[in-house]
Order: sequence, then structure tokens, then C-alpha cells
Amino acid sequence: MDYSFPRETLWRTASKITISAHLFGILANILMLIWLLHYREGMDLDSSNPYRIFNVHPFLMFFGFIFLIGEAMMAYKTVPADRQTQKFVHMFLNLSALVLGIVGIHATFKFHDKMNMLDMYSLHSWIGIGTFCLFILQWLFGFSLFVFPKASAVTRARLAPWHVFGGRALLYMAICAAETGLMQKFTFLQLTNNRESYLINFLALAILLFGITVDISVSLGRFA
Amino acid sequence: MDYSFPRETLWRTASKITISAHLFGILANILMLIWLLHYREGMDLDSSNPYRIFNVHPFLMFFGFIFLIGEAMMAYKTVPADRQTQKFVHMFLNLSALVLGIVGIHATFKFHDKMNMLDMYSLHSWIGIGTFCLFILQWLFGFSLFVFPKASAVTRARLAPWHVFGGRALLYMAICAAETGLMQKFTFLQLTNNRESYLINFLALAILLFGITVDISVSLGRFA
Repeated sequence: MDYSFPRETLWRTASKITISAHLFGILANILMLIWLLHYREGMDLDSSNPYRIFNVHPFLMFFGFIFLIGEAMMAYKTVPADRQTQKFVHMFLNLSALVLGIVGIHATFKFHDKMNMLDMYSLHSWIGIGTFCLFILQWLFGFSLFVFPKASAVTRARLAPWHVFGGRALLYMAICAAETGLMQKFTFLQLTNNRESYLINFLALAILLFGITVDISVSLGRFA
Repeated sequence: MDYSFPRETLWRTASKITISAHLFGILANILMLIWLLHYREGMDLDSSNPYRIFNVHPFLMFFGFIFLIGEAMMAYKTVPADRQTQKFVHMFLNLSALVLGIVGIHATFKFHDKMNMLDMYSLHSWIGIGTFCLFILQWLFGFSLFVFPKASAVTRARLAPWHVFGGRALLYMAICAAETGLMQKFTFLQLTNNRESYLINFLALAILLFGITVDISVSLGRFA
């Protein structure tokens, strides 16, 4: 069987999939806000209500981390500018994700502290912290390789695919962290069939579809 | 920057990643068996103990479904035979996954029935059943396109990338289903820091790494 890919078709579809990725990401952000502001207690990192502190965590870990790294991965396609600008946007979005991710992780430790709860025992926390530590390494690796002190063109070309694969694997892991986190909260809230449970499930599906569409969008770019 | 991939390096690394995928898959199967047989009640689909019925579910959904579809995805690299044989192995492993997946899903409905528990309310069940239904469609699509009645060579070449992307997205979804399922069971068991909780977390990490390594192994094949 011939494995040649019809480039033109792939390019056209790639742009449709990139648009879907944006839409799933925006949908997930909207559902997240409806959940936290309407069904839950709202968000405030300095609140006396520990649940308002906790709620900063899911919001920042999706909007501030997953959504931004997804958009950063697609920046080479979506930013209508020269390659240097695209590269800067890619680096800057990932740096913002790093900073907002630290604040988001801080929120959950502060919540555990106020509630005298154990830290770092659940699968969600293991996947989450593992992903975040590897993400910091990936950012430092990317920055030193492609920005400053910047490797030679040959080295960059040799290592670029591993940067891409690393990023895709990290997105995969971050999505798993989000899904397990929502699953954990869902079980703690002892939800079964009600409006809030449907909302959380649709939110989680939107996050999953964001991950899949970003991944396919990035992979398609590699072929074409 | 030059995006040419040094093929030879990629090929050598691809085979190492494929071996890692096998090892993570085998590790996950071993950890799963230790968990279900030593820490839990064991497995029996016809038991009077509903928990022994339930335990068939995680085992078959990993060994029977995720592990087999992962191995099926890598069959074009790992089976030392001609392309027709590789294709048959790929089809047959996916068919086995379909059958064992149905038995595995049956186990959990039977458990819910015995325990008078609600079905299909959790995120895990939504992702799981969604993945499985799409997997059946993907199998039927693949079979009719590539085996019988088999499309023309041009159509096959045009649709092959979508079959590959569909399979990768389904693997992604299946891993999320596994992670949320283990997270749900973990929370129901009210585990915190003990041997069983570490075992479940390492099992879930092995499953996640199996997914990532299979995905990268398959993607690398596309470049090289």
C-alpha cells in the first residue's frame, strides 16, 4: 500500500482541525467558569473560605496551563507573522503557562494546608506534579536550545523533533492530569445524575477534545 | 530553521521507543495482576462476590483492550513478516480487543446490577463508552476500507492517514478512560498513603507511559 499523503487535502483539513482546537479550548474555558462561579463558590486566592482558594486551581491549571501550552503548540500555524514572531509567541505563551501553573499549584497546597489535608497521595497529584516538573525541564531545554544561548543550526534541526515529541507527550500527560483531577473532585462531591455532574463531564470532554485536536493539528503540520 | 529529520537517528530511536512501549505494557499487566489478585478480591465473572466480578473490568480493559490495541498499532514494526501478515495481525489484535472489551464492559454493568448502583453517570463511564463506540466504528471503517470489500489503492492511500490519526486519538481517549477509572476506584477505596495506593499510582503511570511510547513509536514510523 502506498503511504504518500495528499498534502493539499491534509493542509486544508489541518486548518479546520486547528479551528476546532480553538473552539474546544474556548468552550472548556466557558464551562469551567460556569462551573466555578455558578455551581461552586467562586475563586479567590486570599479568601477565608478554603473552597474559594481551591477553585483557583482548576481554573488556572486549565486556562493558565493546558490552554496556553496548547495555543503555544499551534502558534507556528495560527500567528500570522514571520517565524521569529511565531517563535517568540510560542516561547512567551509557554512561559506564561509556567508562571500561572505555579500559582495554580500553590492554590491547591494552600487549600490542603487550611483544611489539614494530606498532599501528594493521589494519582492526580502524581501525574500533575510529574507533568509540571517535566514541563519546566522542557521549557529550559527549549529556551537554551532555540533562544539563548541557542545551539548551531545542525543541532537545532537534530533536536527539534524531540522538542516536538516531548511537547506532545507533555500535553497528553497534562490532559490526563485534568481528567483525573475532575474525576477526583466529582467523586469527592458525590455527584451522580444532576446538572452539575453533566456540566463537569462535558467540561472534561471539551478538555479531552482540545488535547486531541491540538495533537492532530500539530502532527498534521509535520506531514505537510 | 531547517526541519529535515535525520532519518537514521529517528529509526534507531523508534525501535528503542517501541521496546520501551512493550516493557511499559508488560509492567502494567504485572502490576494490575498483583493489585487484583493480592490486594483485591481476585477475578471471576460468575462469582457470588460482586467485587470479584468487578475486578474482571480493569483487567480486561487494560490487558484485553488498551494493551492489545497498542500492540496492534505497533504490529507493522514489530511483526517480522510480510506486510499482509502484519496487516492480519493488526486486524486480529484489534478484533480481539473488541471482543474482550465487550466482556470487560459487561463485567462492570453486572457489578452495578448486583450492587444496585447507577450506571453511566461518571466521567470515567462517559469517556470509556464513548471511546469504545468510536473504536467499533473505527474497526468497521478499517475493515471495510483495507480488508473487505477493500477500497481502491488511491482511496486507501487517501484515507490511511485518517485511520492512523483516528487510532491515535482513540488510544489517547482509552488512556484517559483508564486513568479516570483508576482515580475513581482509588477515591472510592478512600486510599491515602499506603502500599496499595502506591501500587495503583505506579500502575496508572505505567499505563500512561505505555500510551505515550506507543504514540511516539507510531508517529516516528510516519517520519522515517
